[in-house]
Amino acid sequence: MKSIDNRVTRLFGIKYPIISGGMVWCSGAKLAAAVSNAGGLGLIGAGSLKADLLREHIIKCRELTKEPFGVNVPLMSPYSKEQMDVIIEEKVPIVFTSAGNPQLWTETLHQHGIKVAHVVSSSKFALKAQQAGVDAVVAEGFEAGGHNGREETTTMVLVPSVKKVLDIPLIAAGGIATGAAMLASFALGAEGVQVGSRFAISVESSASPEFKELCTRLNEGDTMLSLKKISPTRLIKNKFFEQVDAAEQAGASKEELQEILGRGKAQQGIFFGDIENGELEIGQVCSLFREIPTAKEIVDNMISEFEEGLKVLKGLEE
Amino acid sequence: MKSIDNRVTRLFGIKYPIISGGMVWCSGAKLAAAVSNAGGLGLIGAGSLKADLLREHIIKCRELTKEPFGVNVPLMSPYSKEQMDVIIEEKVPIVFTSAGNPQLWTETLHQHGIKVAHVVSSSKFALKAQQAGVDAVVAEGFEAGGHNGREETTTMVLVPSVKKVLDIPLIAAGGIATGAAMLASFALGAEGVQVGSRFAISVESSASPEFKELCTRLNEGDTMLSLKKISPTRLIKNKFFEQVDAAEQAGASKEELQEILGRGKAQQGIFFGDIENGELEIGQVCSLFREIPTAKEIVDNMISEFEEGLKVLKGLEE
Repeated sequence: MKSIDNRVTRLFGIKYPIISGGMVWCSGAKLAAAVSNAGGLGLIGAGSLKADLLREHIIKCRELTKEPFGVNVPLMSPYSKEQMDVIIEEKVPIVFTSAGNPQLWTETLHQHGIKVAHVVSSSKFALKAQQAGVDAVVAEGFEAGGHNGREETTTMVLVPSVKKVLDIPLIAAGGIATGAAMLASFALGAEGVQVGSRFAISVESSASPEFKELCTRLNEGDTMLSLKKISPTRLIKNKFFEQVDAAEQAGASKEELQEILGRGKAQQGIFFGDIENGELEIGQVCSLFREIPTAKEIVDNMISEFEEGLKVLKGLEE
Repeated sequence: MKSIDNRVTRLFGIKYPIISGGMVWCSGAKLAAAVSNAGGLGLIGAGSLKADLLREHIIKCRELTKEPFGVNVPLMSPYSKEQMDVIIEEKVPIVFTSAGNPQLWTETLHQHGIKVAHVVSSSKFALKAQQAGVDAVVAEGFEAGGHNGREETTTMVLVPSVKKVLDIPLIAAGGIATGAAMLASFALGAEGVQVGSRFAISVESSASPEFKELCTRLNEGDTMLSLKKISPTRLIKNKFFEQVDAAEQAGASKEELQEILGRGKAQQGIFFGDIENGELEIGQVCSLFREIPTAKEIVDNMISEFEEGLKVLKGLEE
């Protein structure tokens, strides 16, 4: 498959409708550029970056690739206003917004010629995003790593639910790391996939070697949605998780949980590699990982598996 | 599509690899026969039936259809031994076992020429079922209604994980109520689908009109996995659920939860239609339901959507 021509690839000007998520402490310039160079759409995750550092990543990404790339901005972040200013100044062509109101920035970004996609966890929020004028919606299911919706709707149910209310292009996320899952997402009505965990555990990810290595040894059931009283987050069941879980089982309040959570625990775990005491965000699908490939290998494998799967499905008809 | 020829349809001698789950208080002779007459495989759910009543359902099912049908037996049930005796005496051709050790009955059932499938929620249990000699495995994800696995693995992740370890045919379950989801399951490596919620809310289901009607008004997020300290069960968020949830949030013990749960709450809710105080088991996918079709309409729609979806996917190639 030389390329896939659909509304998602045309919208972003890319070959394959495979987008790397903006994973905190993973998605820097290096990963974003590698994904874009492989024919997908690489995103820089602004979540953990102050404005100056975000600017450095954007400039570096532009040095590393001539292809389109984007920035993911969690709108709840205290830095989101400054981040948007940098994005506009640096003429980044694509922005993915998440965790907040899509009305806030869509019009302004459009005025600067920037394409906007918004990440949601329900068809209600998908409809709101469409009404706010975004160009595409990412529907992310319960199996996804890190921050997650409160309704716990899985990708298999969420994608067709969102598809029902949407006219604009739909990108599926949550549990998607292979060409087979990409093909399944297309069967459910998506025209693209956002892949988080698989790219988090790639050569070009900024995550620590300790975190990446741990993620190649996990089995089903080794992540769990946690911190539901604060903001539901899928975590690896390490020592930090056990502390949170014990408190939750005993009926801890939001404030007590906040104290256990503290600050900088995701950086400590994912970036600095403290895999016991850090907060380790990854999706369920990591149980399928046994290797740490390059971003290009990930994209190439997904596309060849997608093609292969399509052939198998076609064989059904007689 | 006149039929689908694969290992699942050949194993059970059916036209379409669509199996109705053995849903407690829903899956009696009437529903099982209707699904089998429509070209799928209908299962009688033995969960709530004592041996004599199960025998009546088997005899009635045979009056209503000449096609193959089966019985689902939860192995944890105190009646499972008597149920198996009846199944063997009545020469039921197919048994689906769940919630227990597949080694218990597989050999005996095989000696009587009965095909056996076993329901699992992890690849570890799938492998054990294969080693026990079952003919097929059902992999059921977190989005499914009623009793559920502890690891919370969703269908999108579970099906490819199980596929990796299995040589025998794989049937996907959890979140599957449409031809699109059936196609997605095939893309993930399944050769059949087990459909619970959609058949629970059909004309031929034994559930009360009140329960069925409620299920056509639900939205995403209106079910939640509950009772995790006893046996994780996906429930509608009604008054009964709120009681359980409040106790769980406050750190209630297993014993305290058992007392709230009491006895006969599923019958009270699903069968007798007490939708406030009963225990209402249904899957996430019910948020897609707005009608109560016949089993034949469900099967026909799934097959035509499956065909339609296949055409769309084929259009991708150029």
